[in-house]
Amino acid sequence: MSESIKDYPAVKWRAGTIGNEADHLVVEEPLEIRLAGRRFTLTMRTPGHDEELVSGFLLAEGFVAGRAEIDEIRRVRGPKGEVEANIVDVILNVKSRELSDRLKRNFIVSSSCGVCGKTSIEALERRITKLEGNLRIASATVLRLPALMSDAQQIFAATGGLHAAALFDVSAPDVAALIVLREDVGRHNAVDKVIGHALMRDGLPLANCALMVSGRVSFEIVQKAAAASIPILCAVSAPSSLAVDLADELGTTLVGFLRGTAFNAYTHRERILM
Amino acid sequence: MSESIKDYPAVKWRAGTIGNEADHLVVEEPLEIRLAGRRFTLTMRTPGHDEELVSGFLLAEGFVAGRAEIDEIRRVRGPKGEVEANIVDVILNVKSRELSDRLKRNFIVSSSCGVCGKTSIEALERRITKLEGNLRIASATVLRLPALMSDAQQIFAATGGLHAAALFDVSAPDVAALIVLREDVGRHNAVDKVIGHALMRDGLPLANCALMVSGRVSFEIVQKAAAASIPILCAVSAPSSLAVDLADELGTTLVGFLRGTAFNAYTHRERILM
Repeated sequence: MSESIKDYPAVKWRAGTIGNEADHLVVEEPLEIRLAGRRFTLTMRTPGHDEELVSGFLLAEGFVAGRAEIDEIRRVRGPKGEVEANIVDVILNVKSRELSDRLKRNFIVSSSCGVCGKTSIEALERRITKLEGNLRIASATVLRLPALMSDAQQIFAATGGLHAAALFDVSAPDVAALIVLREDVGRHNAVDKVIGHALMRDGLPLANCALMVSGRVSFEIVQKAAAASIPILCAVSAPSSLAVDLADELGTTLVGFLRGTAFNAYTHRERILM
Repeated sequence: MSESIKDYPAVKWRAGTIGNEADHLVVEEPLEIRLAGRRFTLTMRTPGHDEELVSGFLLAEGFVAGRAEIDEIRRVRGPKGEVEANIVDVILNVKSRELSDRLKRNFIVSSSCGVCGKTSIEALERRITKLEGNLRIASATVLRLPALMSDAQQIFAATGGLHAAALFDVSAPDVAALIVLREDVGRHNAVDKVIGHALMRDGLPLANCALMVSGRVSFEIVQKAAAASIPILCAVSAPSSLAVDLADELGTTLVGFLRGTAFNAYTHRERILM
């Protein structure tokens, strides 16, 4: 975990008294993702689990369909042979014509009716399979997720500066077993890392899983969960309007304001048993 | 405020009882920004104050140097003459050659030493003037900012789903006068709107101002504040490592964990009087 935390001097005001103390801060650094040697994108992230971040990102954004399409994620070496900590190169097992189709599709938003949430949702509906299946979760199990997540939140406890995402096996209504938890300065990165973790272990589709996130739920978080076939998405805070619209369309059970003994269920409540 | 909030049905679990109630959610919709008719970028945002968002974004990212370089921000009309709610077209008053230089500069990250936070900081140091001046703020004034901000947070109170940014006039050590507060699903958008508000009123540079944000402070938030010459940046939560590094280099007074009677000062504490 050390690459994720760094100590900084801080002057601390506390009800009138002043102290000097080191503060543990979460590390934020850029990561360059290359596809076969060519720069593809640059993202700010917390170092650690970069392979998971990259593979989860490629899946969630529709650039790969599964584990078999990722040949290798390798570290790049600098002029003196040293490993570049903030660059990874991905070799895909996708025909170049198919890849260029996917790249195009991802950067196109239909302009026929302008830009609206509806257009964005329609574009995703063409790419992401609607979530079905008979998974059921007890409301008491839903209420246990925040405590299970915070027990596992190591970096957050140290720095207070992170988003977290946790993946749970919820294959029976009373079961909630933590599979993996990841933390990152970026909300989306934490989700990408969790999904990438499962992808690299051939664990997809995640049809028996619930994803819990520490903050709010935006459109993109719903998209990422659905791309990995996760049917239940829970959050400590509020969803946005478009997150609810998309969850409704894709078949995701969306739960917000999950704290203490309370939660709100917005969409596909049929999966929650009372 | 109505375009920023939408009602959704929600099933609410509360310690064993179940109720059906409408929930107020914050609206998230894409915004397409065009430059002279050509698509430039697409961002998810909360509708409202789009002109501020666009102008603040263009300034913070280094595409315009000031108000005089923005000729017009106009709504686009669809085929039937209807106004497109999620598209704006910007006419800049910048020579095309100069604009293409700025576009290039912004998408280049020096690859000579790979990608690292240091490279990112050096790129910004070439573009953003180091913050100087004799502005001073009393620690008691710093402690008043959260209450002043939350008094003004209208949408957050309704939806619980937003990031907020507030700009204060702090031209004397005991003064903290709210200039503008904006809220958005995107942390960066709230900051862009606040800075865009000042920019459109010819209020830059904001050398007598403090910016307060509701959440965490990333690298990009420090960058945006410094691009508007704001010398004091305060946050309710933690900064990232790179945020502190950049604030140190650019001359920003960075305060984190500002809550109740406490805060931490990370950089350029000489502006804070005890």
